[in-house]
Amino acid sequence: MEHYIDLNCDLGESFGPYVLGNDEEVLKEITSANIACGYHAGDYRVMAQTVKQAAAAGVAAGAHPGFQDLQGFGRREIQTSPEDVYQLTVYQVSALQGFCRIEGTAMQHVKPHGALYNMAGRDPGLAEAIASAVYDVDKSLILFGLSGSELVKAGERQGLRVAKEAFADRTYQPDGSLTPRGRDNAVIHDADTAVRHVKQMILEGTCTAVDGTIIPLEVDTLCVHGDNPQTLAFTRSLRHMLLEEGIQIRSFT
Amino acid sequence: MEHYIDLNCDLGESFGPYVLGNDEEVLKEITSANIACGYHAGDYRVMAQTVKQAAAAGVAAGAHPGFQDLQGFGRREIQTSPEDVYQLTVYQVSALQGFCRIEGTAMQHVKPHGALYNMAGRDPGLAEAIASAVYDVDKSLILFGLSGSELVKAGERQGLRVAKEAFADRTYQPDGSLTPRGRDNAVIHDADTAVRHVKQMILEGTCTAVDGTIIPLEVDTLCVHGDNPQTLAFTRSLRHMLLEEGIQIRSFT
Amino acid sequence: MEHYIDLNCDLGESFGPYVLGNDEEVLKEITSANIACGYHAGDYRVMAQTVKQAAAAGVAAGAHPGFQDLQGFGRREIQTSPEDVYQLTVYQVSALQGFCRIEGTAMQHVKPHGALYNMAGRDPGLAEAIASAVYDVDKSLILFGLSGSELVKAGERQGLRVAKEAFADRTYQPDGSLTPRGRDNAVIHDADTAVRHVKQMILEGTCTAVDGTIIPLEVDTLCVHGDNPQTLAFTRSLRHMLLEEGIQIRSFT
Amino acid sequence: MEHYIDLNCDLGESFGPYVLGNDEEVLKEITSANIACGYHAGDYRVMAQTVKQAAAAGVAAGAHPGFQDLQGFGRREIQTSPEDVYQLTVYQVSALQGFCRIEGTAMQHVKPHGALYNMAGRDPGLAEAIASAVYDVDKSLILFGLSGSELVKAGERQGLRVAKEAFADRTYQPDGSLTPRGRDNAVIHDADTAVRHVKQMILEGTCTAVDGTIIPLEVDTLCVHGDNPQTLAFTRSLRHMLLEEGIQIRSFT
Repeated sequence: MEHYIDLNCDLGESFGPYVLGNDEEVLKEITSANIACGYHAGDYRVMAQTVKQAAAAGVAAGAHPGFQDLQGFGRREIQTSPEDVYQLTVYQVSALQGFCRIEGTAMQHVKPHGALYNMAGRDPGLAEAIASAVYDVDKSLILFGLSGSELVKAGERQGLRVAKEAFADRTYQPDGSLTPRGRDNAVIHDADTAVRHVKQMILEGTCTAVDGTIIPLEVDTLCVHGDNPQTLAFTRSLRHMLLEEGIQIRSFT
Repeated sequence: MEHYIDLNCDLGESFGPYVLGNDEEVLKEITSANIACGYHAGDYRVMAQTVKQAAAAGVAAGAHPGFQDLQGFGRREIQTSPEDVYQLTVYQVSALQGFCRIEGTAMQHVKPHGALYNMAGRDPGLAEAIASAVYDVDKSLILFGLSGSELVKAGERQGLRVAKEAFADRTYQPDGSLTPRGRDNAVIHDADTAVRHVKQMILEGTCTAVDGTIIPLEVDTLCVHGDNPQTLAFTRSLRHMLLEEGIQIRSFT
Repeated sequence: MEHYIDLNCDLGESFGPYVLGNDEEVLKEITSANIACGYHAGDYRVMAQTVKQAAAAGVAAGAHPGFQDLQGFGRREIQTSPEDVYQLTVYQVSALQGFCRIEGTAMQHVKPHGALYNMAGRDPGLAEAIASAVYDVDKSLILFGLSGSELVKAGERQGLRVAKEAFADRTYQPDGSLTPRGRDNAVIHDADTAVRHVKQMILEGTCTAVDGTIIPLEVDTLCVHGDNPQTLAFTRSLRHMLLEEGIQIRSFT
Repeated sequence: MEHYIDLNCDLGESFGPYVLGNDEEVLKEITSANIACGYHAGDYRVMAQTVKQAAAAGVAAGAHPGFQDLQGFGRREIQTSPEDVYQLTVYQVSALQGFCRIEGTAMQHVKPHGALYNMAGRDPGLAEAIASAVYDVDKSLILFGLSGSELVKAGERQGLRVAKEAFADRTYQPDGSLTPRGRDNAVIHDADTAVRHVKQMILEGTCTAVDGTIIPLEVDTLCVHGDNPQTLAFTRSLRHMLLEEGIQIRSFT
């Protein structure tokens, strides 16, 4: 039986004179790029360039819509309505689609960013708003959401293809949620432990929670990082170890 | 021989809590709507609503991209490059296209706004940037530009269908340019004079410049206004008088 | 014994090409103006003009800092930290202070806007951040906050002069909080009822809550509105009736 | 006879999640910091932090107002009016003044940024707008402008103390203007040559233009850079060589 996994990373987060991330290096390691759409990060120049770079690297392009909060990098929760979220998703996904069309690249997926991702993960109304916006813009798009979250459920209800996302470097609670970042044991720092954790998800569809409970956890795509030398090295290690385990790394297209 | 003309107006210029214009009334008088795309005016909520209203009124929807300068309403010239203008056009046109797709409406045209329209009218490099952006996003789109301008020429070179625009209430110089707004005789205030001016353009393809010279001036679409009771009344009069003259008023689709 | 009250209203909420409110008319009725500082509304041109108009009308000027969310008009709660709120308050209050200085007007007060006002009313950390920012910029400023709120308490702890604010057209719960806007009985629509409600606050320092309970409620300033003909008429009536009752209407300076 | 010079550098140009520059290192080399005010770069958090860092380093703080164009980093010329420039200067200078007041630091100077600096250097109307804004906010502020420019003249006419600025690494035309950046000989890459160039300005009040002509050029402050290792090293060399020449390096306060 073949096993495979997609590796996704946030890209195109530079803005105007500001450079963020290490996109060229990261593109060598991943299979799906979540490209910022000018709201929480990125601008039209960066979008054009990142779509081009992803296409050249053979990495599938996706839209990464977020709140219009550059200063807060889209990480601050903003009180809003499903209608508002529907429309901001349509706007950003459509804008990126234009750049993909120009490069002759089909957009593969949509993954909400930061606070929007978190809020849509737990709020069925916001989750449905995103799922229906993605469906209405292009029903062939794949919706990325946290495995087990409301966003994944809303995507499935909507009839979208969904990709269940997990984090290689984060621990889980017995209820399947991520251990909140503030806690001591929230992050897995050791690459070997992370690979075991990921292998268990991919090969067995389970995860060992922080209390030792084994919980079901399906995963189609892993979120990785490459914004600093440490995270880039971690992503490289993870990729090589997965390949050594015979797990194929590929996007959905 | 049949004569016809399109009437276009800038719409969807409200933003957040701010209401601008009189879109519902204007939609009864025009055939093409230039819808702001969130940069110089408009936001995603206003875009969604305006596309819906235009579709309901049977008015053709177009994108109205401008500089990202809400405070200056896109009317201030910003020193920029063709590449920058290409990308900001792709971004805005694609974003509006998403809302059109959702409403099941085909976008008809693109007309640059304000300072961008003026700069592209005289600068071949910026004109070409806009024309190629429009072409690359969707080559079936019609490019609106000032009759005789660089923008119209660039659209034709690009292979786009173009619509030559004239102003019902503005006088012209012997070289075919608009009399600058600062001058005394720049604006035609009298509706009868404006209609004669417009009839001459439509029926004879000429215009009598301020010095009496008769110059060639082709026109496919007239730019009208409706943001205040005076301009709305002017637009209504113009429309009725054109119809009485047997000139059909219709969009390009 | 003399009784008096301050009437405050949000002003200077126009932005770029967008006009909001009816500032000239409102300035005839009020004694304190809360002037937007360019974040949730207003821009530097509007600020300059509004400070000048307030000075000409003999109305005391105050800063009205809010979240940097023009599209949401500062009404959406944004997840943030006390440090962030401290700094955004310093920034906005200082900017308006510059325009006051130029007009030779002393700034009288600071009143946070919208979501920031509400969040600081119930969160002691954010309340303290605002109070200390105001104190640090200029300790002679008066802090406006909802009567009984955390903001008023924080201002007092900080050693600032505070003005306790009440709403002429809103009902109260037995615990002294405003009846949430969604509820049927949240708003007082009748001017006579509103005046009785206000008189009781001013003359007796109490308020009859929605369940009939009489609760203590001190008030130094009433928040009024004038953005549409109805609210302007209401404010005019209220003002005239208060004067007829022998209650003086004056600012704190 | 004693000779001295001020070294100034643009600081506080980070924004939200984006880090730009090398402020801590640069602060060791310079005597005056031009701190971005949240329009072309910087935000309130960065402003608070940079004012604090400058104070700790004994470097004089100044406001660095620019166009509200984060994406273009304030480097794009925007068509505007003297009134607009007056008000945007008041806004930004006053905002930074708040942070200086809180740190117990007196603001020393104002230097316009980027396109605003260039436009005010050649346009007497914009120059006067900036000079009068600075004067009206605080007449003890020193205005920094290109030596020989309209900005310096406007500051002198206004009665402000001015600091004439020169560039250590740029060549000059016979008319005293900078050689435009596009030309081959615009930039001085060699530190020794730069030091000779600077010494001549400081000790003799002259400059040898690109054609060999010796022109008068007064200088009170040198603009230096430190955003990358090369520019930082150049600044360090320049500083050491000036000290070795017996030229004191100090701010104006």
